[in-house]
Amino acid sequence: MASATGDPGLSKLQFAPFSSALDVGFWHELTQKKLNEYRLDEAPKDIKGYYYNGDSAGLPARLTLEFSAFDMSAPTPARCCPAVGTLYNTNTLESFKTADKKLLLEQAANEIWESIKSGAALENPVLLNKFLLLTFADLKKYHFYYWFCYPALCLPESLPLIQGPVGLDQRFSLKQIEALECAYDNLCQTEGVTALPYFLIKYDENMVLVSLLKHYSDFFQGQRTKITIGVYDPCNLAQYPGWPLRNFLVLAAHRWSSSFQSVEVLCFRDRTMQGARDVAHSIIFEVKLPEMAFSPDCPKAVGWEKNQKGGMGPRMVNLSECMDPKRLAESSVDLNLKLMCWRLVPTLDLEKVVSVKCLLLGAGTLGCNVARTLMGWGVRHITFVDNAKISYSNPVRQPLYEFEDCLGGGKPKALAAADRLQKIFPGVNAKGFNMSIPMPGHPVNFSSVTLEQARRDVEQLEQLIESHDVIFLLMDTRESRWLPAVIAASKRKLVINAALGFDTFVVMRHGLKKPKQQGAGDLCPNHLVASADLLGSSLFANIPGYKLGCYFCNDVVAPGDSTRDRTLDQQCTVSRPGLAMIAGALAVELMVSVLQHPEGGYAIASSSDDRMNEPPTSLGLVPHQVLDQYEREGFNFLAKVFNSSHSFLEDLTGLTLLHQETQAAEIWDMSDDETI
Amino acid sequence: MASATGDPGLSKLQFAPFSSALDVGFWHELTQKKLNEYRLDEAPKDIKGYYYNGDSAGLPARLTLEFSAFDMSAPTPARCCPAVGTLYNTNTLESFKTADKKLLLEQAANEIWESIKSGAALENPVLLNKFLLLTFADLKKYHFYYWFCYPALCLPESLPLIQGPVGLDQRFSLKQIEALECAYDNLCQTEGVTALPYFLIKYDENMVLVSLLKHYSDFFQGQRTKITIGVYDPCNLAQYPGWPLRNFLVLAAHRWSSSFQSVEVLCFRDRTMQGARDVAHSIIFEVKLPEMAFSPDCPKAVGWEKNQKGGMGPRMVNLSECMDPKRLAESSVDLNLKLMCWRLVPTLDLEKVVSVKCLLLGAGTLGCNVARTLMGWGVRHITFVDNAKISYSNPVRQPLYEFEDCLGGGKPKALAAADRLQKIFPGVNAKGFNMSIPMPGHPVNFSSVTLEQARRDVEQLEQLIESHDVIFLLMDTRESRWLPAVIAASKRKLVINAALGFDTFVVMRHGLKKPKQQGAGDLCPNHLVASADLLGSSLFANIPGYKLGCYFCNDVVAPGDSTRDRTLDQQCTVSRPGLAMIAGALAVELMVSVLQHPEGGYAIASSSDDRMNEPPTSLGLVPHQVLDQYEREGFNFLAKVFNSSHSFLEDLTGLTLLHQETQAAEIWDMSDDETI
Repeated sequence: MASATGDPGLSKLQFAPFSSALDVGFWHELTQKKLNEYRLDEAPKDIKGYYYNGDSAGLPARLTLEFSAFDMSAPTPARCCPAVGTLYNTNTLESFKTADKKLLLEQAANEIWESIKSGAALENPVLLNKFLLLTFADLKKYHFYYWFCYPALCLPESLPLIQGPVGLDQRFSLKQIEALECAYDNLCQTEGVTALPYFLIKYDENMVLVSLLKHYSDFFQGQRTKITIGVYDPCNLAQYPGWPLRNFLVLAAHRWSSSFQSVEVLCFRDRTMQGARDVAHSIIFEVKLPEMAFSPDCPKAVGWEKNQKGGMGPRMVNLSECMDPKRLAESSVDLNLKLMCWRLVPTLDLEKVVSVKCLLLGAGTLGCNVARTLMGWGVRHITFVDNAKISYSNPVRQPLYEFEDCLGGGKPKALAAADRLQKIFPGVNAKGFNMSIPMPGHPVNFSSVTLEQARRDVEQLEQLIESHDVIFLLMDTRESRWLPAVIAASKRKLVINAALGFDTFVVMRHGLKKPKQQGAGDLCPNHLVASADLLGSSLFANIPGYKLGCYFCNDVVAPGDSTRDRTLDQQCTVSRPGLAMIAGALAVELMVSVLQHPEGGYAIASSSDDRMNEPPTSLGLVPHQVLDQYEREGFNFLAKVFNSSHSFLEDLTGLTLLHQETQAAEIWDMSDDETI
Repeated sequence: MASATGDPGLSKLQFAPFSSALDVGFWHELTQKKLNEYRLDEAPKDIKGYYYNGDSAGLPARLTLEFSAFDMSAPTPARCCPAVGTLYNTNTLESFKTADKKLLLEQAANEIWESIKSGAALENPVLLNKFLLLTFADLKKYHFYYWFCYPALCLPESLPLIQGPVGLDQRFSLKQIEALECAYDNLCQTEGVTALPYFLIKYDENMVLVSLLKHYSDFFQGQRTKITIGVYDPCNLAQYPGWPLRNFLVLAAHRWSSSFQSVEVLCFRDRTMQGARDVAHSIIFEVKLPEMAFSPDCPKAVGWEKNQKGGMGPRMVNLSECMDPKRLAESSVDLNLKLMCWRLVPTLDLEKVVSVKCLLLGAGTLGCNVARTLMGWGVRHITFVDNAKISYSNPVRQPLYEFEDCLGGGKPKALAAADRLQKIFPGVNAKGFNMSIPMPGHPVNFSSVTLEQARRDVEQLEQLIESHDVIFLLMDTRESRWLPAVIAASKRKLVINAALGFDTFVVMRHGLKKPKQQGAGDLCPNHLVASADLLGSSLFANIPGYKLGCYFCNDVVAPGDSTRDRTLDQQCTVSRPGLAMIAGALAVELMVSVLQHPEGGYAIASSSDDRMNEPPTSLGLVPHQVLDQYEREGFNFLAKVFNSSHSFLEDLTGLTLLHQETQAAEIWDMSDDETI
């Protein structure tokens, strides 16, 4: 209870303060606003709350803020009064703590006071229903610190009660009560509002009239020493009015104390009891109006809410405990990403990254590290393809596996990797396909069974590439990259390629051929599809994405079986252990950078590297027809490639001729030397 | 049974071949040799096996190879005959398959034949006990492919049996048997061997004599048409001798067939039955000696072992199933590391890396990635210090945590990280300490309780740094790096520092002060301990490790509380998600490179970067006295630092003066401008 001091002869009027009722929906919406809109902006924001006057006895008067609080045009719920507020959301707990609460209160009080003096509050009584909310949202922990204030201007002295408070049924007849209900409802309807916070009342034994504040001079005409005012009262207590009356009484004192000695207050309470409307529990009382007319200075104000311990201090809600942990994980991950947009890269289009569907061919050292980095970027759709099982040497270098995954012969990598992603972040959509990728020079037609299997593998791979946006080539052989590179080029998918040496690595994107309808025939950029157009002068300047090459572009040997006859150190990718993490991370960062470019995979290659300005070697420009053949002949063409040694692809792509010419040149050179 | 064809009138002698018995110990030792010694060397290696002649009936004749097989000077087990072999360990399964087994057999046969012709086999009969072992060790899978061969020269015709075989007890009296035992034992003792593979026998009803092959002319003097030879026979079968007899018979035929028509063979079998010696089950028979004297050409040879299916093919053992999975994991991890030494970096001293004890201060994004890379390098001793709990946003970026670790408020990071390392690789020695690191500007003396806590934290940190070799600074604030940097400098520990920006990072080593006994006072290199010596000309060339700076060297503000009043994006390390992996990996690679340098942390800094040749700015050279104070005053000095704002450290290190001078300079400049 706010205490009031003053004339000791009469008992004094006291007011029941609001309890702030901040719904979980409010905090959720604040989180979203902070993350996506306010970011580091600390400027005051307009928000909106409401209060209800139909509660059962025992409930405190509440000012409620819910998810709709940030939408100033949102409708107020039925039979509720709106209140307009100002949100001060600070960036740090420090500035929350050190905010000048006295000043904030004074500013708000002054606005209320000005609206009383100017008469604006008569026109729009909601101006009296002002509140402040000081917040700090710790979105890392889902801790919300807040301090609520409902500024109430103080009268120069406390108000002696002349009569009451008594229940309305002790003053009004049933007929009068019904007339009040009727008059109030009619006025609301005329005004198109769900509730009137403040109104004027005139009554006698036969009738009750209500009116808007702005009509006070007409309405009060003929009154002698006393006027009656109505307040929509959220309080339930039989002896006390609620907080909204306070500013209304100041308005009344300021406006009308020169004409009237006292004011009768009807605290209108309007509930439904056992199916029937009940306003009889409203209370009515009369107080002396203090002299405030023509006083120019804003009265002092009170209103900061006490905390749960009853002291003057902020409150805190910890929503992490009541949230679904999986939802919590998702928003926490979002948070970390969105923080990048707050200050460092405001133009970052996260949605482009988060929504991308990534196919990882290879779930080994590179695959695991790429998947980890994709998770860090918030990518939600990750699919693995691998045909290996987890061996004992893997977990220390392949960060999605543990010792237990190696037992009993080892789990299939692709499936175990997908499972692990779910364990890291349940919101991810991860799948694994335990399958082989057919490779040039790895014959498949030993029997019709294996040929059929290869056909199925190719189909499966085509479907997988079709249903993803970015294809990562992360295998440990050169030739296994060939088929997915061809299919992805045909389907115009962005290909990111990473491969490790001992202390060297390659991370590159493949060129993205122009869409078919744009005349693919004459603009085939990469090794798989190169055309004479590449010989144009454009290569000497910046290279557009559709003219970039592929992993095989600088090769002078077509891919074949490189796994045959390999020593142990050639079978394993022997590399400095840190390298896969570096290359994996860079591969994802490259993807992100490409996705951020307005042209995506067609983005121009930067020419910041001076080597770009040197004339390209002829090896980079050998035109090839692989993609055309694949698109014409499909699996039949592929089967030939799988079953052939290097020569088939080399014949097709012109490398055979190149080799012959090179050999001829070498022979010539040697003869030349000998003749000297 | 090896079949023999020839004279149809008499039954023919057949021989029981050896079964190769390759012990797990042999494969283990081969693994070690391959990893550490042979590496890619495919040259034939001498190895050694043995066979026993005391088995119970039912056991096949076995040639055993165990861990000692690679030590040619290892003693032969009691009552076993040695056999000398050649190991052909191939690098690939392909070369295992394509090895020319016919040629290998012919070569070995030829050596045996030469030793027979030259008489060397008479001097050293073990030359007849030759074997070959062709292997491929797939150390990734612990699959061992092998093919065993015990070359047996073939006689030009099969040998008709003139008598027997019968049990020795059917031919010899008990007295003769005892005399044989006695004569054999005496000869072994005289020769100092545990068993004689081949020997000569003379006997009548009263006595038995045995002799060495080399004494054959004296020993056989007076014999008419028949001689008796003894063979140490690993075979148990009543009707057949074992394989070793074959080459001995060829020797006998070559040497003695011109003088004698037939040879009586005593297959000496020597077991213990119910506590008593039993040689009575030895067998004896007589065969016609074929004419082979003066034949110059090596006879054809047989001897490649059949596989389990009874066909001519290699065998394979899969030891991964019978090994302790934890041991298996350890050797697999070792393998991957050792492969680096095979071809790429033969000089790499892995032991220096594997044995290093690493203290990771910070178990967040950087800490997790550093730990992962250390595991990849085989580091076995990793300790985490962190005081945070795992929050929902962590697992997608901190690769040692999963969603479940976040529930219920989150596990302490340091402990969870250590647990995870154990799950990844059970052989690791990982610990976690959930503790805070006292920081400058973060006051600790609010109460004696917290001061005491800070004292304990400092002591704990001192102990931890003392007991580790390399200290990684991986925290998310600048000031938390200060205390460990001071302590580590005082204890002369290598410090690796990593810190992230948004798309920038620092990875560096701190300078390592010279050991105290070498005159520390006048050669304090780093910011904590800098001295006037730094101003010398040496900075313009290569910088020795003891003159390198520390993380704080270029700072113009002493570390203080940077966590106060931080917005959400400043509280989290907002960085491109791939960055921590890159920086973490580089930090470990830097450590490894430093450890590989002969001077370790005192290694000279490379001057390959041209900036090294520019004169250093004066800010890099400000001398400081922090380390001296710490070493003199200990915790009392530290407490002052923790409780002070920047000014204490800035006063101490001279930064205050610098700031004042800079300010003065700025004012001067401004005045200057105004006078123009």
